[in-house]
Amino acid sequence: METKEISQAVIGRLPRYLRYLGDLKDEGVERISSQELSERMQVTASQIRQDFNNFGGFGQQGYGYNVEYLYSEISKILGLDHKHHFIIIGAGNLGRALGNYLNFERRGFIFEGMFDKSPDLVGMDVRGIKVMPIEELEQFLKANQIDIVVLTIPKTSAVDIVNILVENGIRAIWNFAHVDLDVPDGIVVENVHLSDSLMKLSYNINRKMYEAGQE
Amino acid sequence: METKEISQAVIGRLPRYLRYLGDLKDEGVERISSQELSERMQVTASQIRQDFNNFGGFGQQGYGYNVEYLYSEISKILGLDHKHHFIIIGAGNLGRALGNYLNFERRGFIFEGMFDKSPDLVGMDVRGIKVMPIEELEQFLKANQIDIVVLTIPKTSAVDIVNILVENGIRAIWNFAHVDLDVPDGIVVENVHLSDSLMKLSYNINRKMYEAGQE
Repeated sequence: METKEISQAVIGRLPRYLRYLGDLKDEGVERISSQELSERMQVTASQIRQDFNNFGGFGQQGYGYNVEYLYSEISKILGLDHKHHFIIIGAGNLGRALGNYLNFERRGFIFEGMFDKSPDLVGMDVRGIKVMPIEELEQFLKANQIDIVVLTIPKTSAVDIVNILVENGIRAIWNFAHVDLDVPDGIVVENVHLSDSLMKLSYNINRKMYEAGQE
Repeated sequence: METKEISQAVIGRLPRYLRYLGDLKDEGVERISSQELSERMQVTASQIRQDFNNFGGFGQQGYGYNVEYLYSEISKILGLDHKHHFIIIGAGNLGRALGNYLNFERRGFIFEGMFDKSPDLVGMDVRGIKVMPIEELEQFLKANQIDIVVLTIPKTSAVDIVNILVENGIRAIWNFAHVDLDVPDGIVVENVHLSDSLMKLSYNINRKMYEAGQE
């Protein structure tokens, strides 16, 4: 693995490359030039080459990229060549949606447990996993090797839960709670703030309407 | 409203400012300096000033920002000062999670309808809205003023649905389908690719493990 620090913007683009390369593999395409990939993905070929150069370039330009090889290299960079065990805290609709999402399993993300504080949700079955009471979280974390905790709980509950996670050695949180988590260095947090995304959409609607009004 | 083009990176940060300003308002704080805001948000004061300068700066620096005013101005920039009517296509767990999310309503996003192709889901009640069969979508769009369509359907169904949306004058799509939508200019798409976010997390876990191994 490369030692130099790669920008999060580049990392953020890798899953999209992987998605297109997966489609190409499915179509039986063996090689693709940066130009062709550029047209498919609607980004410039120079952006693609720049991104790939962060990782040594992935092969000879004149011949195009080997699709299978590129797919496998990007998978490795993204850590998809080994398994990650995750639990979900919060068994509401969003938590259940994520628990039921089979694509995660295909990528090596293994769903190991689900917790909620509501007695109405405890005991519910989500893809073969019984929702456990939140009181059992700590004991579960001590007894099982969990790599990722998915937080699909309201922001008010998130702070207490995060303390339990940190104390029990959790190193990665996929956070859907609408709050920025305060965690020690060395713990990775990836936020999905859905409201923020919706507001960005709303801004762009406004913007387009304004532009249309100017024409 | 400003006429110059603001970068999507700046726009992407506005909802976070709004979130922190909302908290400050709730705490009864009336004025805040860029320095204090910087400490709370863990971004540099210069970044804050730069971001705000895109919109004219929002007031005198020596006195700090007026929290209420700043909150209201950013809300307006994000288009939150008027209502947006949305429907959700796909009544699975994710669609229902979004339909049930009351915070959207507080921001002026009004949930108007929900559609699914599965007879098992049609008729289900989600926050007072009955899930309608997908066959009724077109007629519904003709009869109602809908500003935003939320797509929580598999990628294979997304392409056909998007054609119906475009033909019926929809100008904004909040896309959770795991595919880049091909839409004409003038239509705004905001993507939430959950798998991409999870892979980014996985990359960063890998990275931290590697760094730890180097120490």
